[in-house]
Amino acid sequence: MPDIYQQSVELHRKNRGKWGVCATVEVKDKSDLSLVYTPGVAQVCREIARDKNESFDLTWRGRTVAVVSDGSAVLGLGNIGALAGMPVMEGKALLFKQFGGVEAIPLCIDLHSADEIVNFVKAVAPSFGGINLEDITSPLCIEVEDRLQNIGIPVMHDDQHGTAMVVSAALMNGAKVVGKRYEDLKVVISGAGSAGLAIAQMLLSIDRESNHKSKILKFSNGTRVKDVVILDSKGIITEQSESWKGVFAGFTNKEGKRGDLAAAMVEADAFIGVSKGGIVSAAMVSTMAKGAIVLDMANPDPEIMPDEAKKGGATIVGTGRSDFPNQANNSLIFPGFFKGLLESKATKVTVGMKQAARDALASFVEPTVDKILPSMFDPGQAEAIAYAVAEQVKKEGLSRTK
Amino acid sequence: MPDIYQQSVELHRKNRGKWGVCATVEVKDKSDLSLVYTPGVAQVCREIARDKNESFDLTWRGRTVAVVSDGSAVLGLGNIGALAGMPVMEGKALLFKQFGGVEAIPLCIDLHSADEIVNFVKAVAPSFGGINLEDITSPLCIEVEDRLQNIGIPVMHDDQHGTAMVVSAALMNGAKVVGKRYEDLKVVISGAGSAGLAIAQMLLSIDRESNHKSKILKFSNGTRVKDVVILDSKGIITEQSESWKGVFAGFTNKEGKRGDLAAAMVEADAFIGVSKGGIVSAAMVSTMAKGAIVLDMANPDPEIMPDEAKKGGATIVGTGRSDFPNQANNSLIFPGFFKGLLESKATKVTVGMKQAARDALASFVEPTVDKILPSMFDPGQAEAIAYAVAEQVKKEGLSRTK
Repeated sequence: MPDIYQQSVELHRKNRGKWGVCATVEVKDKSDLSLVYTPGVAQVCREIARDKNESFDLTWRGRTVAVVSDGSAVLGLGNIGALAGMPVMEGKALLFKQFGGVEAIPLCIDLHSADEIVNFVKAVAPSFGGINLEDITSPLCIEVEDRLQNIGIPVMHDDQHGTAMVVSAALMNGAKVVGKRYEDLKVVISGAGSAGLAIAQMLLSIDRESNHKSKILKFSNGTRVKDVVILDSKGIITEQSESWKGVFAGFTNKEGKRGDLAAAMVEADAFIGVSKGGIVSAAMVSTMAKGAIVLDMANPDPEIMPDEAKKGGATIVGTGRSDFPNQANNSLIFPGFFKGLLESKATKVTVGMKQAARDALASFVEPTVDKILPSMFDPGQAEAIAYAVAEQVKKEGLSRTK
Repeated sequence: MPDIYQQSVELHRKNRGKWGVCATVEVKDKSDLSLVYTPGVAQVCREIARDKNESFDLTWRGRTVAVVSDGSAVLGLGNIGALAGMPVMEGKALLFKQFGGVEAIPLCIDLHSADEIVNFVKAVAPSFGGINLEDITSPLCIEVEDRLQNIGIPVMHDDQHGTAMVVSAALMNGAKVVGKRYEDLKVVISGAGSAGLAIAQMLLSIDRESNHKSKILKFSNGTRVKDVVILDSKGIITEQSESWKGVFAGFTNKEGKRGDLAAAMVEADAFIGVSKGGIVSAAMVSTMAKGAIVLDMANPDPEIMPDEAKKGGATIVGTGRSDFPNQANNSLIFPGFFKGLLESKATKVTVGMKQAARDALASFVEPTVDKILPSMFDPGQAEAIAYAVAEQVKKEGLSRTK
């Protein structure tokens, strides 16, 4: 067991987790108590009963998101269940607060079907200003997310769209560094799980709409890359692929490539890995176009180690890890993204808002080969994203109004 | 609108509620992040996946309760719904933390049947060490609470048992002051809602066990008062009364009193009001036994105002209000009670634990006519209750063990 694991367990045991609650007003005597609790609080309740929207301004609801997970796809650990997922969800809540100033509550739920999870979120929605779905297995997460798009508060599965926004920003900046236009990029995505599909959605500016009966994709406004080829473990997806993959096939692989990952990577400008460690060789990278960008994010071992990718001729290499340059991590997006949604009182999440966040993230750095993305510790980054998202919410007229 | 109402609304608007979250460990750089989040956190997840009980020690679960309400019986406001109940639930969470050091999360849920609420709580239970049900209408709250007694963590509807523990402690101390034995008290309870019935349960040391099919009461160990007469708006409950009232009738009114509240109060040692304001007169109090104790807790107006009760000859008068002596308020119990349950890793709540808390509360003051209960601001009070509860949990062998 590497030392970092042991240290982490000790830290968690000593502190019994890492999350807590605190009053944001002072209560030092009965007089204070009569304002924050009975009898004064009765009037606050009455104001909300009179006008539901007051709940966002008179309670912590407007500042707070729930991080909801069934623990079915936690990190690289798989389906470890609600209980065992909590350390990650507490960590996620911590990042929300630390980087975005957003109050976040981890809710690990012992539920397993889309119906159950959808009903749970609807039931608890009056307590929160937004819902961050987390680490839910695919394709369950897609159905759950899509069925929750019209509950009046923003709902997003971060493993899909947080990843997609970060990857898209990284490619925008990467293209700049290698002297190409984002719109001209040919991109290969290894991994057709929910993250891989969401990345394709983002790169191609596709909107998704589904329920338990229908699966619909359509082009939306916004910049899009030239082509995307998606592969699952069997090779390039086709219209005969099952479920969502078949639908995505209709929007991807314009050149009609066939075959395995090696075939798909020939002449590609960028490789995105959300599949599994060690499946890409330096030889495969060497067949890519000049100025190749490799973002391989399999956890904990990337599809190809950075030094190998460089040997294969890649100009820019990024991973999901903090111990290499160009860490593509969702934490760069979700705190600022939800901060913006909450501050602008957004009623839902749209493609336009994700694009605004992506653009704000990309333009936060003057990119170089080893820094195509800012660090999450760069001050002002979450605020810049939040501002851009909030402006977009207003532009789309999706702010809750009284 | 009295000024306190306006002040309260302003306070809540300025601060957007009064609750927040905070990290309990410091995260200042990537190295810290690698311990509280990936990759270190993965090992913490694995430890819990290996041994479920670790969730209480390696996450905030063991320090945290959910305050769950459907908003169907909030304060004196009635069924104002989940949204409008939040200011009270935030306040409750604040009291949990301030007085008991317990982390508490308000969850206002838009659900209406026992099945739905029971399933919600079961689903979210992996995230919490205890569940405080709050402001759920009667008899829904009884069914919900009883069906959740064996989910492995303590579940209690505070409006029932918190009130009952406080009233019972007040009567114990009140009896001392007026020179009677608790066991000799004849008590009249006006109000046969869930609070009134729970008070009777506590005073008579009765245990309850029910599901959606059966309703069972049985005498438990512990001190009990001599007799209890319960009245609803139609008069003294009888075995013909509907639902739970009929079951309680078999355990109460030994003398076979009949008639209205005035008749019931004749020669009673104590009057407990959990019904509605203004229904008791000084003349009615004057028919009670010498050294009468009146605890009338209807909100915001008590069954009889303290000065009127004194005119009628009552020796001790208490209300639910903070602007009169002898405030009987649940806040005296629940923070310390749940603190004790969490610290002792209790798997459920029993009559014995409630009695232990009641006794600790009562013995925390040397009672006088105007102070039969401590103030919630008296230092050490929650700790004393927590200690007594934890000892009782261990004595009953209901601590979770590895």
